[in-house]
Amino acid sequence: MLSVDEARDRILAGLAPLPGETVGLASAWGRVLAAPVLARVTQPPHDVSAMDGYAVRAADASAGARLRVVGTSPAGHPWDGMLTAGEAVRLFTGSVLPQGADTVVLQEATSAADGWVTLTEAAVPSRHIRRAGQDFPHGGVLLPAGRRLTARDIGLAASGNHPWLTVHRRPRVAILATGDEIALPGEPIPAGGIVSSNAHALAAFVLALGGEPLVLPVARDDINAIAAGADAARGADLLVTTGGASVGDHDLVQAGLGQRGMALDFWKIAMRPGKPLMHGRIGDLPVLGLPGNPVSALVCSVLFLHPALARLSGLPAAPPPSVLAKLGGPLHANDHRADHLRASLAEAADGSLIATAYERQDSAMLRLMAQAGGLILREPNAPAAGAGAAVRVIRLDALGL
Amino acid sequence: MLSVDEARDRILAGLAPLPGETVGLASAWGRVLAAPVLARVTQPPHDVSAMDGYAVRAADASAGARLRVVGTSPAGHPWDGMLTAGEAVRLFTGSVLPQGADTVVLQEATSAADGWVTLTEAAVPSRHIRRAGQDFPHGGVLLPAGRRLTARDIGLAASGNHPWLTVHRRPRVAILATGDEIALPGEPIPAGGIVSSNAHALAAFVLALGGEPLVLPVARDDINAIAAGADAARGADLLVTTGGASVGDHDLVQAGLGQRGMALDFWKIAMRPGKPLMHGRIGDLPVLGLPGNPVSALVCSVLFLHPALARLSGLPAAPPPSVLAKLGGPLHANDHRADHLRASLAEAADGSLIATAYERQDSAMLRLMAQAGGLILREPNAPAAGAGAAVRVIRLDALGL
Repeated sequence: MLSVDEARDRILAGLAPLPGETVGLASAWGRVLAAPVLARVTQPPHDVSAMDGYAVRAADASAGARLRVVGTSPAGHPWDGMLTAGEAVRLFTGSVLPQGADTVVLQEATSAADGWVTLTEAAVPSRHIRRAGQDFPHGGVLLPAGRRLTARDIGLAASGNHPWLTVHRRPRVAILATGDEIALPGEPIPAGGIVSSNAHALAAFVLALGGEPLVLPVARDDINAIAAGADAARGADLLVTTGGASVGDHDLVQAGLGQRGMALDFWKIAMRPGKPLMHGRIGDLPVLGLPGNPVSALVCSVLFLHPALARLSGLPAAPPPSVLAKLGGPLHANDHRADHLRASLAEAADGSLIATAYERQDSAMLRLMAQAGGLILREPNAPAAGAGAAVRVIRLDALGL
Repeated sequence: MLSVDEARDRILAGLAPLPGETVGLASAWGRVLAAPVLARVTQPPHDVSAMDGYAVRAADASAGARLRVVGTSPAGHPWDGMLTAGEAVRLFTGSVLPQGADTVVLQEATSAADGWVTLTEAAVPSRHIRRAGQDFPHGGVLLPAGRRLTARDIGLAASGNHPWLTVHRRPRVAILATGDEIALPGEPIPAGGIVSSNAHALAAFVLALGGEPLVLPVARDDINAIAAGADAARGADLLVTTGGASVGDHDLVQAGLGQRGMALDFWKIAMRPGKPLMHGRIGDLPVLGLPGNPVSALVCSVLFLHPALARLSGLPAAPPPSVLAKLGGPLHANDHRADHLRASLAEAADGSLIATAYERQDSAMLRLMAQAGGLILREPNAPAAGAGAAVRVIRLDALGL
């Protein structure tokens, strides 16, 4: 059986960032840049005042000096004269510094009347001026390719004068749930059946990671129905199936997708929960076969679908983000399979993260999986560990997963 | 001047969670529940097998016992007979345990041929059975009101048989940027003008927090234009303005909104960056007046707009989430204004977070603001602090802001 890391590497090796598309700035939040954003303007475009006050010549501006106010320059309305000896121009935050001026005196350090201003303290040369290009110069890199855009990035791109941005296309993920026993929520439940949760949990998972889910109709446990599901996934960047991925009497997904020529890469991983994880390819279409068990399907999604979507989106090919935490209680030694313990998280008084594994780790406990703050990562054959020991944790809450 | 906490309390006091709307399960990711979700089914609905194997009577199932296979029960196709002495029924993970059986033997502990199965080890009573209701009982609370739905929550609601959910309506936020000096990205820039970044950064901010932005046309520095902006915000849950909130020669927002009857609550806060923050109300419409400086506007958004949107969305009224970190370098003593230092973040070897304030804290540096991992919170009059000292940090990256 493959290790988790080897399986992830093999999945990622078959994926490449999707091509770019042009989107309006207002639609670009959360998208991943496909090209760097270079400044199209210099910011600030001129030397500007950092405060409300007066532009003066430092040579004139001793304490007690009385200067003639020859103009006013609100932000956006530059004064286009030339300031000369004994003169001042009224300025506001963001006002362009007039030619001839070399410093700004604060409004609070003046008294003004009848077109004249008197300085109550001496001006210091070059004070309260934001120099042209202080924030960024024309042509400077504002944002690198491969960055997922935050609200602040949108502001920065706007201020660099970009109404459009080039971002990677969203990954389109077709989701095919299989099984005779499952019914969609609100629909009649067959005898011995259960309500299907995987397809919609996975669709939400895809949305949370910036992809576009395509939820296919549930395929019955029938080779032809599953093969037809593969046909319906045409145009997707990834096909995700749930259920029936391991080889057993009622595990038909491999057979169904095999009818459409799937080249199987692997179908078993040394991990818990979730051993039967399948990876293959139908022509250009990568296929990820998740277990039918909802908890196993979600854990496998965190470990494999998250990195796959990140890679397709233009982000680095890497494991899902994890942080160091301290164990809130002891753990037994692990067996040969990597384990992923559902855990509650808390912040200790010193700010460190405390992760406490739930008593019950049964993979049929979807409610506990939904409540968990994160997954404690346990390496194969990890020794027993006491409370306070350091462990790596994938924070599910922070990912919207 | 008000403290940050007092200002936030006054803003939040005027806001209530928005009413609910019904959305399809597939559209509910990231929304906030307006009502608890109770299970409409018992999960599992019956005692089911946790493994592939055979349902037997423990009394018959000694090592070496040979049992007649009287049926097969794939998941979703329960065997509806009654299992009696000397009999076994083939089961799979999720298969309903037949009547009469009281345990499951693993497939690996058997050999089968010609309609008979031989046990290679004795069965243990009640093994490999998931009891009805083990995950949740009918009527049990799956998800509480006030929870922002994760992908796992969507799966849990599905498995509780909910095709629809009741969530709080998304907050509609009208955004009115003001100023003669600003131009939209890609449009002609007036002499002495700059490209407007605030409106689109704020719109992205609202999207990141699950709201619906309404970006109004830029209002020139004219009382009537600003009053008309207030009219255009009709139907919004919140009006956010940028620029012109403090009282000065070119600060017209108070005057413009005053024409529409705004009751002013406050307009100055003891904080940096961002002192001129205005709060008021035009009839039912709360108004938040942010500074025109893009960095100040973003910092004020984190401190005040984030909690306001959370409250409107149905989340608890609280400050934005912060974590403890260690300083990466020393800080000077603070003055009487709460400070919010833009900082880079790194993970130390022990997993703790290291926050290092940027050398330059000029509020005109939008590029640094976009690069910052977080904001270090400095209380008014905080003493100087050395490297390694504990500080609270708002992580901007984690919020998509």
